[in-house]
Amino acid sequence: MINRRNPKQWQAVPFSEVCISDPYWSPRITANREQSLPNQYHQCKTTGRIDAFKLDWTPGSDGPRPNPYWDSDVAKWIEAAAYSLAQHADPLLEELVDETITLIASAQQPDGYLNVYYTVVEPENRFKLLSHNHELYCGGHLIEAAVAYYEATGKRVLLDTMTKYADYIATVFGRGEGQLRGYCGHEEIELALMKLFGVTGEPKYSALAQFFVDERGQQPSYFAVHEREALGDLVEKLYQEDFSYCQAHAPVREQSKIVGHAVRAMYLYCSMADLAKTMGDEGLLKACERIWEHLCSTSLYITGGMGSSRLNEGFTADYDLPNETAYAETCAAIAFAMWNHRMLQIDCDGKYADMLERSLYNGVISGVSLDGKRFFYENPLASRGDHHRSEWFDVSCCPTNLARLLASLGQYIYTLQEQEALAVHLYIASDTEVSLGGSRVKIAQTHQYPHSGLIRLTIAPDTPVPFALKLRIPGWCNAFKLRINGQEVEPEEVRENLARGYLTLQRLWRAGDEIELALDMTPQRIYAHPLVHANQGRVALQLGPVVYCVEQVDNGASLDQIVLPRNAAFVVHQAPDLPGGTLKIEASALRFNEWNANLYAVEAPGTSSITLTAIPYALWDNRQGGEMQVWIRELP
Amino acid sequence: MINRRNPKQWQAVPFSEVCISDPYWSPRITANREQSLPNQYHQCKTTGRIDAFKLDWTPGSDGPRPNPYWDSDVAKWIEAAAYSLAQHADPLLEELVDETITLIASAQQPDGYLNVYYTVVEPENRFKLLSHNHELYCGGHLIEAAVAYYEATGKRVLLDTMTKYADYIATVFGRGEGQLRGYCGHEEIELALMKLFGVTGEPKYSALAQFFVDERGQQPSYFAVHEREALGDLVEKLYQEDFSYCQAHAPVREQSKIVGHAVRAMYLYCSMADLAKTMGDEGLLKACERIWEHLCSTSLYITGGMGSSRLNEGFTADYDLPNETAYAETCAAIAFAMWNHRMLQIDCDGKYADMLERSLYNGVISGVSLDGKRFFYENPLASRGDHHRSEWFDVSCCPTNLARLLASLGQYIYTLQEQEALAVHLYIASDTEVSLGGSRVKIAQTHQYPHSGLIRLTIAPDTPVPFALKLRIPGWCNAFKLRINGQEVEPEEVRENLARGYLTLQRLWRAGDEIELALDMTPQRIYAHPLVHANQGRVALQLGPVVYCVEQVDNGASLDQIVLPRNAAFVVHQAPDLPGGTLKIEASALRFNEWNANLYAVEAPGTSSITLTAIPYALWDNRQGGEMQVWIRELP
Repeated sequence: MINRRNPKQWQAVPFSEVCISDPYWSPRITANREQSLPNQYHQCKTTGRIDAFKLDWTPGSDGPRPNPYWDSDVAKWIEAAAYSLAQHADPLLEELVDETITLIASAQQPDGYLNVYYTVVEPENRFKLLSHNHELYCGGHLIEAAVAYYEATGKRVLLDTMTKYADYIATVFGRGEGQLRGYCGHEEIELALMKLFGVTGEPKYSALAQFFVDERGQQPSYFAVHEREALGDLVEKLYQEDFSYCQAHAPVREQSKIVGHAVRAMYLYCSMADLAKTMGDEGLLKACERIWEHLCSTSLYITGGMGSSRLNEGFTADYDLPNETAYAETCAAIAFAMWNHRMLQIDCDGKYADMLERSLYNGVISGVSLDGKRFFYENPLASRGDHHRSEWFDVSCCPTNLARLLASLGQYIYTLQEQEALAVHLYIASDTEVSLGGSRVKIAQTHQYPHSGLIRLTIAPDTPVPFALKLRIPGWCNAFKLRINGQEVEPEEVRENLARGYLTLQRLWRAGDEIELALDMTPQRIYAHPLVHANQGRVALQLGPVVYCVEQVDNGASLDQIVLPRNAAFVVHQAPDLPGGTLKIEASALRFNEWNANLYAVEAPGTSSITLTAIPYALWDNRQGGEMQVWIRELP
Repeated sequence: MINRRNPKQWQAVPFSEVCISDPYWSPRITANREQSLPNQYHQCKTTGRIDAFKLDWTPGSDGPRPNPYWDSDVAKWIEAAAYSLAQHADPLLEELVDETITLIASAQQPDGYLNVYYTVVEPENRFKLLSHNHELYCGGHLIEAAVAYYEATGKRVLLDTMTKYADYIATVFGRGEGQLRGYCGHEEIELALMKLFGVTGEPKYSALAQFFVDERGQQPSYFAVHEREALGDLVEKLYQEDFSYCQAHAPVREQSKIVGHAVRAMYLYCSMADLAKTMGDEGLLKACERIWEHLCSTSLYITGGMGSSRLNEGFTADYDLPNETAYAETCAAIAFAMWNHRMLQIDCDGKYADMLERSLYNGVISGVSLDGKRFFYENPLASRGDHHRSEWFDVSCCPTNLARLLASLGQYIYTLQEQEALAVHLYIASDTEVSLGGSRVKIAQTHQYPHSGLIRLTIAPDTPVPFALKLRIPGWCNAFKLRINGQEVEPEEVRENLARGYLTLQRLWRAGDEIELALDMTPQRIYAHPLVHANQGRVALQLGPVVYCVEQVDNGASLDQIVLPRNAAFVVHQAPDLPGGTLKIEASALRFNEWNANLYAVEAPGTSSITLTAIPYALWDNRQGGEMQVWIRELP
């Protein structure tokens, strides 16, 4: 059924070639550059994460003891800085990165090994606790940073350092005599090695990634055989006997269900998609497709967040999607966006773009305050008022993950399908230029999406050229109109060319061609599967791709005492007290009167009319702290 | 405000003087006598609980190791058997009890000590682990058994044994030189000593009860000082640092909130009420009243069950009343009935009788199957179909507790207030004879309550005599009519004489006087306080004192897909497929159609009309196992 059309030749248009000038995203990107990046450097510096690469910590020394995951925070900051520098020169920032890289390179051991924690704190355990620490995970993030900084600046210091480390890893791990057939408990190195392969063209890196992916979950389990004792009762408490916590319960290409720690799972599937695309590995692709379906049909929050339980930072049972206790780690939503983006480069199906968009506009961007200064680690869908963003965390994966995503957002918008087609996945106002049919073609998007459904694209090839422009028609959109150069495209033509979420416009494009796509953005009521017990009798509101919520600051306390009649009409208008053209939804609703009885009463309390105000979920906790709900009680 | 009118002279009419012939209760009492009592003896015998009193277990021996709570199971079986024998001669049963008592008496140590576990398993720890085992608790139950058997048969063996043990306890515990100022982690001995005081008239037993009650919670905590080490991490896991788990966080007369383990709490309050009544201890009474109000306004299930958490078998936070995970131990509901019964002997307020009735007809009697063979330990208010009654439990307090309650049910019906008044708390068809105004007065109740609200009482003094008959008008009842000898009592007269839940009929009563009280028993919708999150948007049905539920066998699976419109009319009729005149409630309701979408959808599923059938909660799981719900989704 899937027409993959040689996706080996498909490629995302890189962020460095897309200039975003979007009313929704540009302020976020600016805040990321101006606030998040300097603040995160400051945090990495003051917490000792950067100086840890001096390797001068000893058991007796004063400074903070390095943590097993510290290297990755610094790495993701470098990666984010690299993406930013590629688009926005900043000599001071570049100097800070260079300094940091010098320090990192100095920490490399003569054999190529590079990890602070296992050099100074537990040197005797190098590669002996793969299951429960982040040794190769840290290496993976440093590789990603190295590739990013090399691509942004052409500077090779970190790339050479990490290539040397990767070469060393390739000697330690493998199926040869005396090599370890292990893999990291926290996936990451796999997708990083694919990036290293991409930039170096060196097949040993993709082979090593393939090795790690294929060894994962082979039985008897590497962890059970080699690390059972070191794990102790962590196995019972967290990992489960089968190591499903880290997706190592079965060979990955045999897996069908989403299980375990959410971020680990997403990073694994990213690498599986990379291998599927690069190596044409159909088995891995099919596993990705099965798991993706299971995730999206049973375990995904409407915000694109996932992983309902704090205990394992991950998945529990199908349809177990509590709102107030939702863990929904920011990193998991980010990694889900990354996975969907990869799937789109293999299979241009709108379902992946829908999920990419859902996570970006909701469960990802909720993770950072509008000013770029504070972050959510957990993104619950309801709060009694005690959940707020923080500047930093002890385990601080989310802030730097957001920083690298925002600094590279442009790459998610387009896919170039050989020289023949350009797919538009996201409607983000921006300019780019690509090669199509041998011509250079400028593409510009100008619009207020998602605050308006009216999208304008202009196409400007340097000479008239035939190619297919594939416009995504979002899954949430029930009606749309299309005009090309002012001329409405007939419904029949639309029907014929609309498939799997994309409207394919195959024609000879000329400079000045203008496309106007009007997506119906009437607010929608969303209902959840009845097995999602938390949402029984509740409704969520969505406007375009944006999931809404109600906040105490607009609606008073005790949000659970508000019910929205099913027939209530919605009024949408701009919210002058909210930033940048944000739309709020208002509706006539009812609030239960105060309960004047004891614990039980024979009469339900009466109701009073109120105006309910909903704002985008991603914007909550940006004004006064207070209660919040995505799923509102409904009066059917 | 409270007119207690010298309650020292009030007394419950004992069960031995009340002959129950009630369509609702008599089959339960018969099943208790014919099934539960023999089965429980069999369980006590085969599990080793009875033979344990031979004290022949040693660390090397084959038989099962006695458990710290075993003595209490045997004791409660004896107590139940005694109550049964007092009303229903059974030479074989009496012989079994006598044999068992001989064995128990033989286990008494020369100094009077009597406890199997701390004689054979941990003799070195006698009275050293008061906080976390059941040493004095077991003694208390054996004392209750001794008093009951003495009163039933006049036989003194167990009474003498337990008196000797109590005398020994009184030497060990006290405020004198070398005595322990401790108390048992599981309350029970206190109320038992009050019973021993009642039967012997010996004030040292009430003094010892008062000592235990008053020492409880004195600071610094006895447990913290003497047993902190032995408790280990149980303190953190269960007891909490302040020992609120066993109500020992503050002196009991300073307490105001319901906390900790539910059964422990209830037994404590029983003894506090006993001391309040017997000693006129106002401080303890006021504490009881405060705690009772807190319990009933924040922490009581509509079934009269309590203790929402399995973890501490007790209370958590105000309004935390989950349905499916409700622990609501049968013993806690029984002990709540016992406490309310005691409060009624001090303060004839209908609120206590309402709670007594609520627990008896719901959360207590749900604990046993109709045939008397199987028992619930936990009484959740919703089930997905995996909760069923069992014949016995490792910790098997509930079955014998039900047995002793059912065998002594008659005592809950009447209170004789000196020679001047008789209060009728419960409408249970029965005959009794009491002394009022110097006359012997026969009272008979004949009716089908709770299957009909039409209650008949006949009064037959041997000579005409003036006294006040106080008829309880249940709190759930919104309308009633009263006829005396066929003559309707005028509403004004009713108004003048109705106070605090009782209608006082003060008159000269003559043989043949007949009272007809017609209580309106229209089915009622009950709503819970909005802070009870589990019940938001839900309604419970109640018919008279009986809380209803819906079961899968009548309504199909997926009960959560049923919604009851607020305006749905109820039809009540007898259920031929259910025992003894039980009424079922039917109503037109809606069932959501099957969900044909993915995880989320823009349309809520439609509904189809169904007939909803509700049966008494206490009867659930008596037919096919399946789902059950007390709180039904409502369409307001």
